[in-house]
Amino acid sequence: MTKKVLLKLLEEKKFQSIHEVLSKYNPVDLAGLLSELDDENMVLVFRMIEKEKAAEVFSYMDNDLRQVLVKTFSNQEIKYLFDSMFADDAADFIGDMPANVVAQLLENVDGETRVHINHLLQYPDDSVGSIMTVEYIELNPNMTVSQALDKIREVGNNSETVYTCYVVEKHKLLGIVSAKNLMISSRDTLIRDLMIDNYISVKTNDDKEKAANLFRKYGLIAIPVIDSEGCIVGIVTFDDAIDVLTEEATEDIHKMAAITASDEPYLKTSVLKHAKNRIPWLLVLMLSATITGSIISKYEQAFAVIPLLVSFIPMLMDTGGNCGSQSSTLIIRGLAVDELHFSDIPKIFWKEFRVSLLVSFALALANGIRITLVYGDVQLAFVVSISLIGTIVIAKLVGCLLPVLAKKCRLDPAIMAAPLITTIVDAFSIIIYFRIATLVFKL
Amino acid sequence: MTKKVLLKLLEEKKFQSIHEVLSKYNPVDLAGLLSELDDENMVLVFRMIEKEKAAEVFSYMDNDLRQVLVKTFSNQEIKYLFDSMFADDAADFIGDMPANVVAQLLENVDGETRVHINHLLQYPDDSVGSIMTVEYIELNPNMTVSQALDKIREVGNNSETVYTCYVVEKHKLLGIVSAKNLMISSRDTLIRDLMIDNYISVKTNDDKEKAANLFRKYGLIAIPVIDSEGCIVGIVTFDDAIDVLTEEATEDIHKMAAITASDEPYLKTSVLKHAKNRIPWLLVLMLSATITGSIISKYEQAFAVIPLLVSFIPMLMDTGGNCGSQSSTLIIRGLAVDELHFSDIPKIFWKEFRVSLLVSFALALANGIRITLVYGDVQLAFVVSISLIGTIVIAKLVGCLLPVLAKKCRLDPAIMAAPLITTIVDAFSIIIYFRIATLVFKL
Repeated sequence: MTKKVLLKLLEEKKFQSIHEVLSKYNPVDLAGLLSELDDENMVLVFRMIEKEKAAEVFSYMDNDLRQVLVKTFSNQEIKYLFDSMFADDAADFIGDMPANVVAQLLENVDGETRVHINHLLQYPDDSVGSIMTVEYIELNPNMTVSQALDKIREVGNNSETVYTCYVVEKHKLLGIVSAKNLMISSRDTLIRDLMIDNYISVKTNDDKEKAANLFRKYGLIAIPVIDSEGCIVGIVTFDDAIDVLTEEATEDIHKMAAITASDEPYLKTSVLKHAKNRIPWLLVLMLSATITGSIISKYEQAFAVIPLLVSFIPMLMDTGGNCGSQSSTLIIRGLAVDELHFSDIPKIFWKEFRVSLLVSFALALANGIRITLVYGDVQLAFVVSISLIGTIVIAKLVGCLLPVLAKKCRLDPAIMAAPLITTIVDAFSIIIYFRIATLVFKL
Repeated sequence: MTKKVLLKLLEEKKFQSIHEVLSKYNPVDLAGLLSELDDENMVLVFRMIEKEKAAEVFSYMDNDLRQVLVKTFSNQEIKYLFDSMFADDAADFIGDMPANVVAQLLENVDGETRVHINHLLQYPDDSVGSIMTVEYIELNPNMTVSQALDKIREVGNNSETVYTCYVVEKHKLLGIVSAKNLMISSRDTLIRDLMIDNYISVKTNDDKEKAANLFRKYGLIAIPVIDSEGCIVGIVTFDDAIDVLTEEATEDIHKMAAITASDEPYLKTSVLKHAKNRIPWLLVLMLSATITGSIISKYEQAFAVIPLLVSFIPMLMDTGGNCGSQSSTLIIRGLAVDELHFSDIPKIFWKEFRVSLLVSFALALANGIRITLVYGDVQLAFVVSISLIGTIVIAKLVGCLLPVLAKKCRLDPAIMAAPLITTIVDAFSIIIYFRIATLVFKL
């Protein structure tokens, strides 16, 4: 159903038809549809969704719309909502509401849920704790497969996943059992004999990107989260890992373009916030670029004699910047997906050096021919081409080294991307260019 | 076990200990460990892995190492390997082997597997068909839950996932049932009554990025692949979707840095290949940058009179490039994660326009103050600041429009990133700057 059809049905007050159509919709799509309506209609339509589904739809909505909805809820409805939501979704939602709303909401949830939510709210935004959920299936090592299946039947509906079960004794995580193994094993097998004890796990304070990379590497459905004593405190599921991987890629891409990372969608971010996210790095880079400017002004006499020299500055600067950013981009992404490491520095350096020679000779040749043909000046062609080679070699080496060094210094390698590399390489290229020009033309 | 320990055990010929330690390893980690050994030891250690696990380890290894291994396999071993691998992994592997090896391999697999592999090999690299698998669980709508569980018990071990089952009648996909639902429903429920019939599906020829985005949006474990008649031909699982999302992000990041996308890891790519991936765009951009150069040479007389003018060129060019790339990056990523669409163009344009005013005034102010303080020349400060404002506004508008237009023309928006935008904006900034300078200083 499109927004148009829905609005028409609303206008004609055909509420029963709306209710029927809504029941066939996927919760994710319903959340999308609601976000296209104005607030009044949104609240109206939300109330036409069947109760059980409504809680799920709610968990997929944006925070601004959820805030609008919550204001119209009775205490009873708030209680029902929280009982139906998974603790991690509830904590995410609570964490983004204004303080007065939070107080009202928490008053209406039951004690256990409140403890879970408060617990989840403690973890820093980028930690595993912030994306874990506390609803998982615990099995006892002495259960049989049959008993385990009975337990899943009983509590399965309230667990975020039933596909990996956790074998726990005195809170300690002994091992994991997949639902697949339970389903294909004979009924009287002991869980203890079925479980895998060399499982992959994470700690609550680990970076959530680390957890997400484990999902990618091992293709897991869920990873248990344990504390320093080896006790299980929650699990992370693959759908949250997919979100983290997407967010982290977006964050890196934004940082690489000198934008302060923000997880708000583009259109929902205010103009002021957009400007705030962009100005700081632009200012830093602009002021750094003035260094290149003052280097140029040292060579005023050179281009006073041969003004044509100035016209090659953009080409040299742009090419240097592009070469540097190619190298830094390859390295930054390689570090992010855990494909490159600090120990690879000699190999990377040697590879980039050889690549830079190939690239620079190719470009210098093209450029040399062009200048000779256009200006008929072989000496000029020589000066520009040699400067180009020097610029490219330096650009590629700076471009590959800085991200790795940043990683080593526990800085985010993504900062060492095109904008900063370009600014640094600019200065080098101008120095090389005018040095060579003054030498060759004896200025 | 680290490489060091393993090499020591090998040297001491303690093969039994190696075998025992290997049995505790995760197949993914084993594949990683093998890749660190030289070919001879790699083959030796691979043969010490228990047979069943070896096939799985093999599916996680890089192609160059797999080729080395395959050469040492007997026909019996090749047959066993293919029987144990999932068809999609087998097809991936076959697809990357040299023709003579392929012939030898396919001779040794059984008829059905060969048909599956040949079928999967037909799909283009970026299609859903290329990542789908044909091992899934089919249920009949008239089965009971109990019969369905029996079927899973019987064939589950050969299916890539048992967690979503497909209800099929005469090849037509009627609906899907989750294993969770099977596990928590009463034994005599009919599958027909349990299945969901408004499921999400993809077509074999859909772009694999589209499928991956559906996983992200709906948090699914598997998506069925259907043909034009609604018959099921395979499934895609979440772990393949995670790989696709990572690959696509990497590809976009590389393209945005003017690198031809390649899915080989950085260190495994030869120097020549690296150079080939980088030179084409650099050449295009370098030659485009000469346009800016020739614009500059038109204003030779201007900077012959006031040479100081030249020293502001890098700052203007860099800032324009950075501003443009901020905007284009935000839009390119928004388009990639399906958050922005062509229809948003007016909203994007209006937002970027206002952001550009805020950003440009902030930077112009900082720059104006700096120039007034350093050079004591208010007129110069005025010229540079006004040029900066014009450059930034144009940069942001060009930066946000080009990716959206590229998308509309079915080009990859990622091409409209920093390097190209910078080259375009450079020309604008130089024209604006010298126009204003010649006007104000009456040159």
